[in-house]
Amino acid sequence: MALRVQKFGGTSVADIERISKVADRVQKAHENGDRMVVVLSAMAGVTNNLISLAGQASDTPDKRELDVLLATGEQTTAALMAMMLKSRGLKAKSFLGFQAGIHTDHMSGKARIREIDSHNLREALDEGHIVVVAGFQGADDHGDITTLGRGGSDTSAVAIAASLKADVCEIFTDVDGVYTTDPRICPKARKISRISYDEMLEMAILGAKVLQIRSVEFAKKYNVPVHVRSSFNEEEGTMVVNESKNMESPVVSGVTCDMNEARITFKRVPDQPGISAKVFGALAEAGISVDMIIQNSRTGGETDLTFTVTMDDFERAMEISKKVADQIHAGEIRTATEIAKISVIGLGMKSHSGVAAVMFKALAEENINIRMISTSEIRISCVILAKYAELAVRTLHAAFGLDKE
Amino acid sequence: MALRVQKFGGTSVADIERISKVADRVQKAHENGDRMVVVLSAMAGVTNNLISLAGQASDTPDKRELDVLLATGEQTTAALMAMMLKSRGLKAKSFLGFQAGIHTDHMSGKARIREIDSHNLREALDEGHIVVVAGFQGADDHGDITTLGRGGSDTSAVAIAASLKADVCEIFTDVDGVYTTDPRICPKARKISRISYDEMLEMAILGAKVLQIRSVEFAKKYNVPVHVRSSFNEEEGTMVVNESKNMESPVVSGVTCDMNEARITFKRVPDQPGISAKVFGALAEAGISVDMIIQNSRTGGETDLTFTVTMDDFERAMEISKKVADQIHAGEIRTATEIAKISVIGLGMKSHSGVAAVMFKALAEENINIRMISTSEIRISCVILAKYAELAVRTLHAAFGLDKE
Repeated sequence: MALRVQKFGGTSVADIERISKVADRVQKAHENGDRMVVVLSAMAGVTNNLISLAGQASDTPDKRELDVLLATGEQTTAALMAMMLKSRGLKAKSFLGFQAGIHTDHMSGKARIREIDSHNLREALDEGHIVVVAGFQGADDHGDITTLGRGGSDTSAVAIAASLKADVCEIFTDVDGVYTTDPRICPKARKISRISYDEMLEMAILGAKVLQIRSVEFAKKYNVPVHVRSSFNEEEGTMVVNESKNMESPVVSGVTCDMNEARITFKRVPDQPGISAKVFGALAEAGISVDMIIQNSRTGGETDLTFTVTMDDFERAMEISKKVADQIHAGEIRTATEIAKISVIGLGMKSHSGVAAVMFKALAEENINIRMISTSEIRISCVILAKYAELAVRTLHAAFGLDKE
Repeated sequence: MALRVQKFGGTSVADIERISKVADRVQKAHENGDRMVVVLSAMAGVTNNLISLAGQASDTPDKRELDVLLATGEQTTAALMAMMLKSRGLKAKSFLGFQAGIHTDHMSGKARIREIDSHNLREALDEGHIVVVAGFQGADDHGDITTLGRGGSDTSAVAIAASLKADVCEIFTDVDGVYTTDPRICPKARKISRISYDEMLEMAILGAKVLQIRSVEFAKKYNVPVHVRSSFNEEEGTMVVNESKNMESPVVSGVTCDMNEARITFKRVPDQPGISAKVFGALAEAGISVDMIIQNSRTGGETDLTFTVTMDDFERAMEISKKVADQIHAGEIRTATEIAKISVIGLGMKSHSGVAAVMFKALAEENINIRMISTSEIRISCVILAKYAELAVRTLHAAFGLDKE
């Protein structure tokens, strides 16, 4: 008798018919004797509709109130699912974020889970209920409703699985699993059957939309086996698990492409201590995450400072950058939004040298100019012009042998 | 500096434009120096849409889960209103039922408020916030979300006003106030400027939709002055207040017509003690309210037992009635659904005799047959065939001098 947490995304619960199909699946597992926790997103499109409604109410919707508004989406699906299961004669009970004991910090719109008091959920499971939880939401210590950001239901599910020490957290989505790269860009992309938390984390950070980044962090931290699979068939998907000794570690497991960044360059910044701290301190204060940072030496006691932020933060980052540029007497600010970050990820990099060389050579052969480079232990990323993105992905997918079965 | 609770119904917040008009009104009062609590219904149509969605999920939607679903409607308007007020530079904060401290019993779908812990609301008011409360909802002592039944936002507003000792509870609606009768039936209906709690209570019970019954009970119990007025203009509406010595008490203040009842008759019931207790005990156990009851003596130790229930409860009442009829060896059960209950209400009845005689005579002159009669200290009701309802209303409105200015 396994304890399974199953999370279904927006397309899996897009209408009553699909919710009914999800209920079929949950019922089947329940009747097999498994103890079931079902975590649901809002119906596809609902969150966007609510955001648009908020946009009509206010040009800059208050974040606390936006969370109250957005939370209705998951509340709706959780209630519908519970009533559907009950009407089949099953014991079921819905829980909103605060009822499920999901305590978060105060960061409206992108709150982080601090802890889960799973007492209520355990009690309901012990009573034989199928537990249905509204994903994406929690409550802070004032009792204010918070939401966990885009894809937050993944994090709800994994955190609940960790808290309940579930045997598996199944993430049902509209794709079959995690792919070596985006199949829409590269037809030769293949499903990965097993991937480590670290690789998955890099891929999620780099724009693979299949799992929210924080859900993978949670899974890694609490060692929750995550199974990413399709809600539209019974196929096995991708197991995201701890890196193990006998795990085959290809040099490169996947290639990602992130079009959602913008580049900001401060030209002719005085080359003095404390300048970077001023720039990035101001951005951090505004809650803006900076991704890549490069500083080029110039002659004459000046330097160029380049960094990337997500498109969402770009406008605000520019406002702040302009103010800081005045303060530090920097020259002009240049920006680029038509850029793409192409990355290759693989645990095998740890023990293989020359991966970067292969990557740069493959791109050079296609005349793709590299604008920025950053690396981690298991990743190499290059920023290139957006128009070369697809070509670069296909080139690297082939260069690292991912085209082969 | 008055403390005002303002409640706006579904048509007053039907879309962003109307919500904006409500925000104008609230802002104006706030800038006049009044401390404001705004209680909101769901946007017009939303609750019905949610009920229909639940109907697609289940033929008999579970009541606990239905409440979770329905509560999203008011959550949406409260969040939108708060963000709109904030975007105008005002301090505002939304509260859901449980955040507003509205504790109810467990009766999903028609929960009753047990008490209000207005600590959070007071604190927000003291901080200078416009307090925006999602009407219609509360939480029971398990933390489960409950709803207060149709029109429950009125009750939320009056109960909050009572708890905060507000100077007035203004109920903004799509009509100008309380009328002597339904203007759609009787063009000579006039707006009543002052009415007592007791009269208002009778009118609400009898189908005047302008205020939820329990809101009037609350207002009476805690002596909350209630002002029923239009959200579309600045006109004074109807003040619902305590009966006062110098209050002019017309013999009849209003005429109501309730088409929402059905009649059930047990024919040839054994005329023994305990029979009524069995019938009405079984109905009460199922939470079905019985309105009028009449027992006619017959010959031969048998009697006919007739009562009315609301149309909502009719089907369930019939199921129960059939079972009980078997147990008590009653004869057949007869039903009538095409009926109307016409009532005249007036504090003045307490000191005037002959009101019933005037009523019966007026109906008889129009050849309208009376099927059932019931009375209270300030009300006389007659059940007639539905097809005569409009005629009866106009006839009585004239007979009791309400046509005159």
